[in-house]
Amino acid sequence: MFFKKIHKDANSKARAGLLRTDHGTVETPIFMPVGTQATVKTLTPDDLLKSEVQIILGNTYHLFLRPGHKLIEEFGGLHPFMSWDKPILTDSGGYQVFSLKEIRKIDEEGVTFQSHLDGSHQRFTPESVLNIQRSLGSDIMMVLDECAPYPSTKEYASKSNVLTLKWAAIARELYEKQKPLYGHNQWLFGIVQGSTYKEIRQKSAEELVKMDFPGYSIGGLAVGEPPEVMYEMTDFTTDLLPDNKPKYLMGVGKPEDILENIERGVDMFDCVIPTRNARNGTVFSKAGKMIIKAGRFKADQNPIDNTCGCYTCQKFSRGYIRHLMNVNEILGLKLATIHNIHFYLWLVKEARKHIIENTFIDWKKKILPKIKSVI
Amino acid sequence: MFFKKIHKDANSKARAGLLRTDHGTVETPIFMPVGTQATVKTLTPDDLLKSEVQIILGNTYHLFLRPGHKLIEEFGGLHPFMSWDKPILTDSGGYQVFSLKEIRKIDEEGVTFQSHLDGSHQRFTPESVLNIQRSLGSDIMMVLDECAPYPSTKEYASKSNVLTLKWAAIARELYEKQKPLYGHNQWLFGIVQGSTYKEIRQKSAEELVKMDFPGYSIGGLAVGEPPEVMYEMTDFTTDLLPDNKPKYLMGVGKPEDILENIERGVDMFDCVIPTRNARNGTVFSKAGKMIIKAGRFKADQNPIDNTCGCYTCQKFSRGYIRHLMNVNEILGLKLATIHNIHFYLWLVKEARKHIIENTFIDWKKKILPKIKSVI
Repeated sequence: MFFKKIHKDANSKARAGLLRTDHGTVETPIFMPVGTQATVKTLTPDDLLKSEVQIILGNTYHLFLRPGHKLIEEFGGLHPFMSWDKPILTDSGGYQVFSLKEIRKIDEEGVTFQSHLDGSHQRFTPESVLNIQRSLGSDIMMVLDECAPYPSTKEYASKSNVLTLKWAAIARELYEKQKPLYGHNQWLFGIVQGSTYKEIRQKSAEELVKMDFPGYSIGGLAVGEPPEVMYEMTDFTTDLLPDNKPKYLMGVGKPEDILENIERGVDMFDCVIPTRNARNGTVFSKAGKMIIKAGRFKADQNPIDNTCGCYTCQKFSRGYIRHLMNVNEILGLKLATIHNIHFYLWLVKEARKHIIENTFIDWKKKILPKIKSVI
Repeated sequence: MFFKKIHKDANSKARAGLLRTDHGTVETPIFMPVGTQATVKTLTPDDLLKSEVQIILGNTYHLFLRPGHKLIEEFGGLHPFMSWDKPILTDSGGYQVFSLKEIRKIDEEGVTFQSHLDGSHQRFTPESVLNIQRSLGSDIMMVLDECAPYPSTKEYASKSNVLTLKWAAIARELYEKQKPLYGHNQWLFGIVQGSTYKEIRQKSAEELVKMDFPGYSIGGLAVGEPPEVMYEMTDFTTDLLPDNKPKYLMGVGKPEDILENIERGVDMFDCVIPTRNARNGTVFSKAGKMIIKAGRFKADQNPIDNTCGCYTCQKFSRGYIRHLMNVNEILGLKLATIHNIHFYLWLVKEARKHIIENTFIDWKKKILPKIKSVI
């Protein structure tokens, strides 16, 4: 069995589970650091392991353009290429392509777009995107979908969803016929769309569930809507998806968003926030976030978080990290990234522990004001 | 005893020794990676240890400007500030200041200059530079000297040397009176100058030897002169320095320069080449150097050097590193730096082994054409 629910929280929809892949078992709820170009920015695979990362995400769009999925296939897939032996999830590339508003054209069979790098014309179809992910050898693959922008009219969202469902059916059928290239299983997720319209999301979920995917993503959120709308949509959608399948909320989010959505039944998350914010000089902690570049940390000999077990907090002070950032040393970006990733993994691990102990809601209430605050 | 000569090669002036500091013993000949701003660029202290680094260099000029030596003093010195427990050598800052040709003014008592960062007026004297290094707490300190440019007239080099000797005497005297701030010993080196003029170098060395420094640097080389001239000056100068003191050739150099100067009696080296070249995409190996960014490495599944024990060569291919460099991923800079530093440390370690076995010259002849070649 690919996914196993271990426990449901007594006071919410939060769940603890196990995601079993041929590259290892992932404890859910889980956060997946983003490794866009075959590396989580600034970190080695060893750094990821030390920060207790269990699964990472790769971006199909970027890897398709550089170095190209066929080159990665020569290396035996993304795992050996980047020397990461644990699970990898890849997106479909759709999100990036549909962000290229001016230089992409959508039709019934797929989407034609221009590379943001050299303007060359490229095309994604439900079939090609699946084949690319077969070359990448990710443990979890996504179908090609259209992520409707926020806000979208109901008409647009509905029409878009029809296309997304058509593409999902094509991908589901092809998936059934294919064999993985490298021996290990690759699981395909369907993606629920529907913008902020419950009835479209309901139709999307129902049709996808009929197709019986190994797992389900919730897409089209964290695209600019208010957090409350995101939470409402997630809450509504998770109820429509089977209890025995993993539920993945794409592109989310801030620490508070992760907790709110775990409460609403989400098992998997990915987001660039911990890595990108680290490189911009913002670090998270149990006591609040801090702009580590700020002058007030100049002489601060404390670690970012003296209760944190990460390499950065074991060895370095706020003052030193602030200095590194201030003089543009790469090590500063790396130390901040190590810490932020460790914090995100700590967050979901703690959440899981409290779900199993049925104390999730109390714990969340207690910790939320702290982690949202600014030190 | 601070320095102990263990063995002299039977066929050259090459020597193997031990440099004993309160932060550990260094096996010479040794290469010291440059950690200008309180970090060897892209690397953590753990990375340095894994690459068998024994001692690093910090730049007084940069640390004086940012974050300031008084701030570093608040942290207990450079060792705790950057979390590096092994030996540190600091330069005097003179080299950087004298490079600021247009915005520095030299007088009998010191040098006034404008910061390259904000144009603020600053001053270095033999006394202040020693005090700064006391705040930094480096295990080995340098006297303030003037590094004459190449080429210099004999008149300029001679006049410059008189000033350098005067400053050396002031520093030597002050050093004798001072106590280190943090308990551990700090050793002061005199710096032989004299440009490419043997008689000036001779006078410089003789006067410095009279002052009885714990160690001696050879400065004013690797500033644009042909390699043969550098080798000749080194060869001449090492003979003038006491056998029982360490001899440090500042700012050198390429792998071949290191071997040539070990042969001529040098014990210590520092240079930005392994780290800077790594970030520019050039890596060294026993079989030759390679421009790892080159397209021909795109599909190359071999490590940089399949006989190398560094983390990079254990885990990653040339093709992957080339990809990282090509898409501007920081991890590429780091993996190349890890390898280059490991290579430089391997080089001096092998040299030491062959010195002790009296096979240094044969080994050098065999390896030199290989490491100078381009793959």
